Amino acid sequence: MTDDRPSHPRPGMSPVDHAELALLLEVASTPKPGNVDRRRDHDDLRFEHFLAGAVGARPGLREAADPDRPLGDAFERAVRGMSQQDGDNTQFGCLLLLVPLVRAAATDRLSPAGVAGVVDATTVDDAVSFYRAFEHVEVAVDDPPPDAAALDVRRGADAAPAIRERGLTLADVMDLSADRDGNAAEWTGGFERTFAAAETVLDDEGPVTDRLARAFLDLLAERPDSLVATEHGRDVAEAASRRAAAVRDDLDAAEELAERFRAEGINPGTTADHTAAAAFVALERGVPV
Amino acid sequence: MTDDRPSHPRPGMSPVDHAELALLLEVASTPKPGNVDRRRDHDDLRFEHFLAGAVGARPGLREAADPDRPLGDAFERAVRGMSQQDGDNTQFGCLLLLVPLVRAAATDRLSPAGVAGVVDATTVDDAVSFYRAFEHVEVAVDDPPPDAAALDVRRGADAAPAIRERGLTLADVMDLSADRDGNAAEWTGGFERTFAAAETVLDDEGPVTDRLARAFLDLLAERPDSLVATEHGRDVAEAASRRAAAVRDDLDAAEELAERFRAEGINPGTTADHTAAAAFVALERGVPV
Repeated sequence: MTDDRPSHPRPGMSPVDHAELALLLEVASTPKPGNVDRRRDHDDLRFEHFLAGAVGARPGLREAADPDRPLGDAFERAVRGMSQQDGDNTQFGCLLLLVPLVRAAATDRLSPAGVAGVVDATTVDDAVSFYRAFEHVEVAVDDPPPDAAALDVRRGADAAPAIRERGLTLADVMDLSADRDGNAAEWTGGFERTFAAAETVLDDEGPVTDRLARAFLDLLAERPDSLVATEHGRDVAEAASRRAAAVRDDLDAAEELAERFRAEGINPGTTADHTAAAAFVALERGVPV
Repeated sequence: MTDDRPSHPRPGMSPVDHAELALLLEVASTPKPGNVDRRRDHDDLRFEHFLAGAVGARPGLREAADPDRPLGDAFERAVRGMSQQDGDNTQFGCLLLLVPLVRAAATDRLSPAGVAGVVDATTVDDAVSFYRAFEHVEVAVDDPPPDAAALDVRRGADAAPAIRERGLTLADVMDLSADRDGNAAEWTGGFERTFAAAETVLDDEGPVTDRLARAFLDLLAERPDSLVATEHGRDVAEAASRRAAAVRDDLDAAEELAERFRAEGINPGTTADHTAAAAFVALERGVPV
């Protein structure tokens, strides 16, 4: 933080509180073209499902803050709690980013190097728990490479023998898909985009939800969304980023883009995950609410 | 619950979780004419302040669930935590209703008789803590009767000697204003409106936020809002209820009423408090989200 930023102490709020609030602020921020936000629902995935998902995730986030609990178990528990609503998958990707960030914040090392240390410390058991989390909700993922079918995340707990046989930690698993999954890339790259976006949110002005909407547009403009690429192909994902770039300085124009993305079924969900992660870091660093 | 209602188990959600979710669902439900909701902010009181208020209130709600903790302390802590955002008073009244309801639910007696037992067990210390809670935020209240100036809630902790001298429990304090304050009336009347509204929410259909918006309109149509009466007088409060009655079966017409109430500065906040309380009971009884 620069010295001229006003301080906004929330002494009663822990990293767990800030993680939950980050989930809530992410879904409230609008417009976030293609995503559920304060002004838009999807057909079977509504705003209130995200509210319940955030509350339900809390026990897992609490485990994430406890350095004595395995990180993979914390994630699996967060996803299981999040899934206690009728919208199915609301915040799987957000939680995948928040869990190591909460661990880093709770152990006084919320920095790129600190969270890299959290990632490096993951184990084979953490990887097995990560796979188990896929059993709680439907997650849109790419097919694995032909030589990695045994490690398809959609196998859930059935992938455990393959993971153990190869001795893969959760960090190793993320490394396998970092080239095509934006959240895995954060894990293996010191959460570079998360920390950079948090700084833009802290340097911005106005209500935090407007700041996060602008951060979302910047993130999408800067890099194609991996969920859009999975669902619609690389060309559509790249075009979506160009369309976001064209409205990044104008939230009114972004409102129109939000309507068009919804009509076209374009859902930049990975970029929303990064926005939630940035919200967490910004909250920890004192962004006013 | 009737037997033909589908069960919606949320085994991982405690009364504390449901109380927090009730606060979130209340503010998300729209239209709730005159209140902040998913579609409307007030000038200095925005949607995100309520999200932060709900998260911040959690430690106090957790104390409310612990029968060994004084109820007044739980309330004061909930209000203190709620106040850690820039919108000042977001959910004081909601918390005043939720704290005894959480205590009742956590001790397996979430019924009119059960919560009446919680109220009856309050002490003089609870009353002193209740007054202390007024020091954390600005609460709109009526002037006290001329013979009760020493008990003006705006005196905060300074009222403690008068409370102790008269031996007033928190239940006694509520009794003193039950004739003009809708939340105090719930405390002294077995939360009659709360439980009745929860039943209409459970019997209703559709998304829970639509059910809560309809419950809000019904509650407002049924009885003038005591915050509106405090701020604008009894005639305006009665007219507001007649206006709500005219749109209670039509959420689109209620949208127009929301715009008119906002333009006129009419804020039926007590009715919103009752809606949050009803949301809590409905969640505990399995309303789907």
